[in-house]
Amino acid sequence: MKKVKVGINGYGTIGKRTATAVNQQDDMEVVGVTKTRPTYEASVANKLNLPLYVPDEEVAGDFKKAGIKVAGTIKDLYKKADIIVDCTPGEVAEEYKRQYEEAGIKGIFQGGEDHSLTGISFNASANYKESWGAQFSRIVSCNTTGLVRTLYPLDKKYKVQSAFATLIRRSADPNDSKKGPVNAIEPSLKIPTHHGPDVQSIMPWLNIQTMAVKVPTTLMHLHTVMVKLGTEASTEDIIDLWKNTPRVRLVKGKSGIKSSAQIMELAKDLGRPRGDMYEIIVWEDGVKVVGDTLYFYQAVHQESDVIPEIVDCIRSMCKIEEDPSASMKKTDMAMGI
Amino acid sequence: MKKVKVGINGYGTIGKRTATAVNQQDDMEVVGVTKTRPTYEASVANKLNLPLYVPDEEVAGDFKKAGIKVAGTIKDLYKKADIIVDCTPGEVAEEYKRQYEEAGIKGIFQGGEDHSLTGISFNASANYKESWGAQFSRIVSCNTTGLVRTLYPLDKKYKVQSAFATLIRRSADPNDSKKGPVNAIEPSLKIPTHHGPDVQSIMPWLNIQTMAVKVPTTLMHLHTVMVKLGTEASTEDIIDLWKNTPRVRLVKGKSGIKSSAQIMELAKDLGRPRGDMYEIIVWEDGVKVVGDTLYFYQAVHQESDVIPEIVDCIRSMCKIEEDPSASMKKTDMAMGI
Amino acid sequence: MKKVKVGINGYGTIGKRTATAVNQQDDMEVVGVTKTRPTYEASVANKLNLPLYVPDEEVAGDFKKAGIKVAGTIKDLYKKADIIVDCTPGEVAEEYKRQYEEAGIKGIFQGGEDHSLTGISFNASANYKESWGAQFSRIVSCNTTGLVRTLYPLDKKYKVQSAFATLIRRSADPNDSKKGPVNAIEPSLKIPTHHGPDVQSIMPWLNIQTMAVKVPTTLMHLHTVMVKLGTEASTEDIIDLWKNTPRVRLVKGKSGIKSSAQIMELAKDLGRPRGDMYEIIVWEDGVKVVGDTLYFYQAVHQESDVIPEIVDCIRSMCKIEEDPSASMKKTDMAMGI
Amino acid sequence: MKKVKVGINGYGTIGKRTATAVNQQDDMEVVGVTKTRPTYEASVANKLNLPLYVPDEEVAGDFKKAGIKVAGTIKDLYKKADIIVDCTPGEVAEEYKRQYEEAGIKGIFQGGEDHSLTGISFNASANYKESWGAQFSRIVSCNTTGLVRTLYPLDKKYKVQSAFATLIRRSADPNDSKKGPVNAIEPSLKIPTHHGPDVQSIMPWLNIQTMAVKVPTTLMHLHTVMVKLGTEASTEDIIDLWKNTPRVRLVKGKSGIKSSAQIMELAKDLGRPRGDMYEIIVWEDGVKVVGDTLYFYQAVHQESDVIPEIVDCIRSMCKIEEDPSASMKKTDMAMGI
Repeated sequence: MKKVKVGINGYGTIGKRTATAVNQQDDMEVVGVTKTRPTYEASVANKLNLPLYVPDEEVAGDFKKAGIKVAGTIKDLYKKADIIVDCTPGEVAEEYKRQYEEAGIKGIFQGGEDHSLTGISFNASANYKESWGAQFSRIVSCNTTGLVRTLYPLDKKYKVQSAFATLIRRSADPNDSKKGPVNAIEPSLKIPTHHGPDVQSIMPWLNIQTMAVKVPTTLMHLHTVMVKLGTEASTEDIIDLWKNTPRVRLVKGKSGIKSSAQIMELAKDLGRPRGDMYEIIVWEDGVKVVGDTLYFYQAVHQESDVIPEIVDCIRSMCKIEEDPSASMKKTDMAMGI
Repeated sequence: MKKVKVGINGYGTIGKRTATAVNQQDDMEVVGVTKTRPTYEASVANKLNLPLYVPDEEVAGDFKKAGIKVAGTIKDLYKKADIIVDCTPGEVAEEYKRQYEEAGIKGIFQGGEDHSLTGISFNASANYKESWGAQFSRIVSCNTTGLVRTLYPLDKKYKVQSAFATLIRRSADPNDSKKGPVNAIEPSLKIPTHHGPDVQSIMPWLNIQTMAVKVPTTLMHLHTVMVKLGTEASTEDIIDLWKNTPRVRLVKGKSGIKSSAQIMELAKDLGRPRGDMYEIIVWEDGVKVVGDTLYFYQAVHQESDVIPEIVDCIRSMCKIEEDPSASMKKTDMAMGI
Repeated sequence: MKKVKVGINGYGTIGKRTATAVNQQDDMEVVGVTKTRPTYEASVANKLNLPLYVPDEEVAGDFKKAGIKVAGTIKDLYKKADIIVDCTPGEVAEEYKRQYEEAGIKGIFQGGEDHSLTGISFNASANYKESWGAQFSRIVSCNTTGLVRTLYPLDKKYKVQSAFATLIRRSADPNDSKKGPVNAIEPSLKIPTHHGPDVQSIMPWLNIQTMAVKVPTTLMHLHTVMVKLGTEASTEDIIDLWKNTPRVRLVKGKSGIKSSAQIMELAKDLGRPRGDMYEIIVWEDGVKVVGDTLYFYQAVHQESDVIPEIVDCIRSMCKIEEDPSASMKKTDMAMGI
Repeated sequence: MKKVKVGINGYGTIGKRTATAVNQQDDMEVVGVTKTRPTYEASVANKLNLPLYVPDEEVAGDFKKAGIKVAGTIKDLYKKADIIVDCTPGEVAEEYKRQYEEAGIKGIFQGGEDHSLTGISFNASANYKESWGAQFSRIVSCNTTGLVRTLYPLDKKYKVQSAFATLIRRSADPNDSKKGPVNAIEPSLKIPTHHGPDVQSIMPWLNIQTMAVKVPTTLMHLHTVMVKLGTEASTEDIIDLWKNTPRVRLVKGKSGIKSSAQIMELAKDLGRPRGDMYEIIVWEDGVKVVGDTLYFYQAVHQESDVIPEIVDCIRSMCKIEEDPSASMKKTDMAMGI
C-alpha cells in the first residue's frame, strides 16, 4: 500500500505528537517537519531522523551554525508531501493556506483557527464524512474535542435539550515558562465564550453555552458540565454509555484519582509516549443524574487529545478509509489507546 | 450606650478580622481573644492590646515562657463576654456550644459548621430577623455568603427559576503554606456539593445546584453562575440592580481588573485593612442576559466577606438594632465599605 | 516649615507606596502623580485626592471619557514639583532625566536603571551623604537594598572577607497576572548576576558574588547568604547586631513564621498599609556561624522595602536633614516601622 | 545466565521506575511488587503483569473486591526474591530491615533513610565497590546523588577545597496534589541542612555546606553551587570534564532550555519512559570560573535520577559485575541514557 506522505508545519506541542502518531500508522508517514529556529527541539528532530525544513536559506545558515542538519526549505517539503498538518501558531494560517493551495496539496488546520478558514471542522465520531476528500479541514480545539466526545453520544441517545459548561483552563503548557498567572483566577469576560460556537461547528443543532476561567496550572483543562436530557436516564445509564464510547475513559476518585495530577500519573503508568492522555477523562463517581439533569466533571489533556483526531482526519481527507469506526480503531490500536 | 461585650474564640483568619471590625463599631467591643499556642499571632494580639485567653493554666506557662502576656483562661473570658464569636477550626464546635450554653452566653458559629448545630443561619440582607434575640446563630460560609448576596436581590426582583453555579475555589489561604495542590485541578466529586444546600439554609425556596473545583491559588474564590429568570430583564437591568445592592461591587475588565489578582490590588489601593475586600465582586463586562438566562462571574474574598455579616449578626442576636438596613449601613460606614 | 514638593512619575507598585509614605511625613508632600492609561488605579488616585497628570492632552480625553479627573499634563507637574520620584518602567529613564534637567528639578530613579544613569546610588544606612544636594540619585533595587541592609553593618563590625548569595526571586508581583512561570524554576544564566555589582554601587569594596533563580511565587524574594567574616563572631553576636540594625527584623520559625507566606501575614497583623513589610526579614533560628563562616536566610518584600529609602533620599537630596540616623528615625516613625 | 530476582517493596514513585529499569536489564528481573491499597496504581501493576503482593490476607480481600489480582502476601515475595528494593515511605525501614534479615535476603534502602541504617551508602561512580556483596546498602537521595555526580569528578581532577550549595527544592512530586505551598518560599532553617552530611556519606573528605528552600513547583530541584578549586581550571576545562562524565548532561539556555520546564520537555522529546531525566542537568552557559572559584547551576529530576544507581547497586551487592564502569554502561544502554 502506498503510504500518505504527511508534512508537519511547526514542530511544537502538537507537531511533535502528530509526527509520532503518524509514524505509528501503517498507511501514512512523515516526510518532513518544519522549525523556524535552531532550538533543542530541532536537534531532537535530527536525532529522531525527521527531515527538517526551514523557512528559507538564510535561516538554514543559523541551523548549520548550531550543528543542526537541514533537509531544505518549506517549498521543498511542499513538493514531497500529499498533505500538510499545519501546527503553526496563530495569525499565519491564511498565508499558509494560500501556499498549500498554490502547491496543490491538502492542509489540516488546528482549533486556534476559525471555522471559516476551512468551512469544515472535524471530529472523528461526530462528522468524519464531512472531511471526505476535502482539500482543507480543521481539527477543533482540545476543549471542543473534549465536549464533543462526551456530548455527541449523549445527544444521540438521550437528546440533549441544553448544555452549560464551565471550562477551568490551564494557563500554560508544561513546557511554557513565560505565561502566568502565578497566583490568580482570570475569567473570560466575553460571554458566551467561543467554546460553545466551536462545538456547534461540529454539532450545529446543539443548544450549548459556556463560560471559562484561567487558573495557575499546566496539566489539564477541567470542565463542569450540566446537561438537560430529553429522555429519561439514570446515572448508571450514562456511565454505561461512556464506558462504551471510544476516546472517553472513566476513572474513580476512590481509586486515588483525585485531581488532574493523578490522571497525568496514570498516563505515565500506562506507558504512554510523553505521558499523554488522549482520552477525555470522566470521573465515574462525579457523574450524577438529578431529575432530568445530568452533572459531570471531565478533564482534557490539552497537549494530546486532538492527536488521534488528526490521524483520522488525514484518512478521511485522503480517502484511505471510508468507515469512521474502522479508522478510529486502527488509529487507537496503533497509538496504544 | 452600653457596648456589647464580644469574646472571640480563635484568633486566626476570621478571628483577627472580627476583632478589628468589632472594635470599629461604637456599640460593641472586644473583651478578649483566645489562642492555643504562643505563635507570632499571639504576640501581635499583645501589641494590639487585645486581652489574650488560653485553654488552661498549663498552656499559659508556654505563653509566658515565650514572653507573651496572658489575661486568663477561656473560662475567665466567658465571665466577661455577652457573646462569643466562635472562630475555632472544625470538630470542636459541639463542645464549645455546650460550654457557651453552660456559661449562659450567646454564640455565633461559622460556615464550617452545619446548619443543624444552631438551627438558624444568617445573612444580613436576606434574613436578619431570624437571628433576633437568638442564643446561637451561624454565619454561612464565604462562598454561600457570596451566592446569597447576588442571588437574593435577583430572586426578589426577577424570580429566580433555577440557578447553577460552578465554584472555582482557592486551595489555601495566603498564610497557609502547607496545603496544595501546587499544580493540579481537583473536582469535588460529591454532587451536588454542599454549597447549594447551604444557600438553602438562608433561601429554602431557591432551586440551586452547585459543582466545585479546587485550584492552585490563594487569593479568592471565583464563581461562574447561570440563572434562569422568571421575569424579563436586560443585561443593564441586572447591572443596575447590583449597583444598588449593598456589599456587591462591580468592576470592569476593561479598567484593568482582569483577574482576582487585580481585585486584591484594588482592595489595597482603597486602603482597606489587611487588603480585604468585604464586597462580592461582579465583573460588569462579564454579566450577560441571553433570552431568559443570566450569566455572570463573581469573586469572593474568602478571608473577609463574612466579617460585616458577623457584626450585623451580633446586633440582631443582642437586639441592638431592629432594622437590617440600618445595621448594615452602620457596619459598612464604620468598616469603610 | 516649607514642605518639599514631590511629584511621582508612574503611579504603580512603587509609585503608590511612595505617595502614601511621602504624605505621612511632615516635611514633604505629594503634589501630583502621573498615569498613562485610565485604569482602576487612576480612579483610586482620584478618590485619594492625588492630583493626576497625564502625558498629553489627547490622553487626557480618554481619562475624561472614563470619568477620571485630570489635573494637567506632566509638563504642568514639572512646574509644581521640587523633585520627581521616577517610578516609570524601564527604557524611558534617559528621556525623563533629560526632561527633569530641562525643567530644572531633581529626580530619583529606581533600581531598574543602571548606576551610570545618575552616578550616585543610595542606601540610607550606608551612604546617605553621597546624595546630599544631588540633582539625581538612584535607589538600588529591592534585592540590593536587602543585601546592603544586612551586609553593611556586618562588614562594619566583623569585616566581610567575601559574601556569596543565592537569590530566589518571586516571578511576578501579586497584582501581575500575565507573567509566569506557573510551574518551573528558571536560573539567571549570566554569572555573576547583576546583583553583586549593584551592591558594589553602594559598597564598592565588598567582595560579593551572586546567583539567582526565578520561582513561581508572588510574595517575596528570599536569599541564602554565606559570608566569610574577618573577625571572630558567634551566632549570638550576629543576631544581636541585627536586632539593633534599623529596617532589619528578626523572626522565628518556631513562632510559626515558616515561610514568606507568614511574613506577609505578620505585616497584615501589624496593621501595615497594603500589608507591606518594609524591613528585611532575617530568620533568627536560621542564622548560624560555623568557624569563620556565617550562614543566614533573609526575605525581601520586593514591593515595599525601598520605600523608606526613597523618603530618606528625598531628604538628603533636598538638604532637609543632615544626619542619616535622624532622617531614618523620622521616616520610620511616620511609617509605623 | 541466572537472573537476579528483585522484589520491590512499595510501588510508588521510585518503585514503579525501578520495576521498569530492572526489567530492561538482562541480568535481573522483577519477581513482585507490593502495594498496601487497591488504587489505580495497583490496577496498572496488574495490566503490566507485575505480580502484586500485599501486607496480609485481610488487605488482599479489599484488592479482590476492587477487581485487582493479588499474587500473595509480602512473606510470599520474600521467598521468591534474592533482593528487595525498599521503596516504602519513612519510619518503617527499621522493621522491614529486620524482616529482610530474617528472610535471609538482601535489601536496598532509599535516601529518605539515615546512613546509619545500613552503614553503607551508594553512588555508582564514587563508591561502587563499598557495596560489593553487602547485605544492605542505601542509595543516597536525589539531591545528594545530583551533588555527587558533578562534585566527585571535579574533586578527582581539580581538588575541591570547599563547596557551598543552595538547594531550591520542588515542594511536591507531580502526582501529589495535597502538599503545598501554593504561593510561598520556605527555608530549611536547620543549618547546615542534612544534604551536606549526606554527600559526606559517599565522599567523607569533602568540605561541603548546604542551605535549602522549598518552592511551589513540582518538576525538579535546582542547585546553585559555588566551589573553590585546588588546582587551576578554565570554564572550558570544567565543561569538558562534565561532557565526559556519565549521567551528567549539558544543556544550553540559548538553545531554548531556560528552565526546568524545558528540561522535562526535552526528556519527553527524547522518548524517555514517563518523561524521566535520569541525568543531572548542568547549564553549559551557566558554568563560570572566576579566579579559583567555580559557579554553576544544576537541575535534578527527583523522581528518577537515582534509578540507574539502584540498578548498579543491585549488581554490586549481588556480585554480578565487578567493574563499576561496565555496570554503569550496561545500565545506561538498557535504559536508553
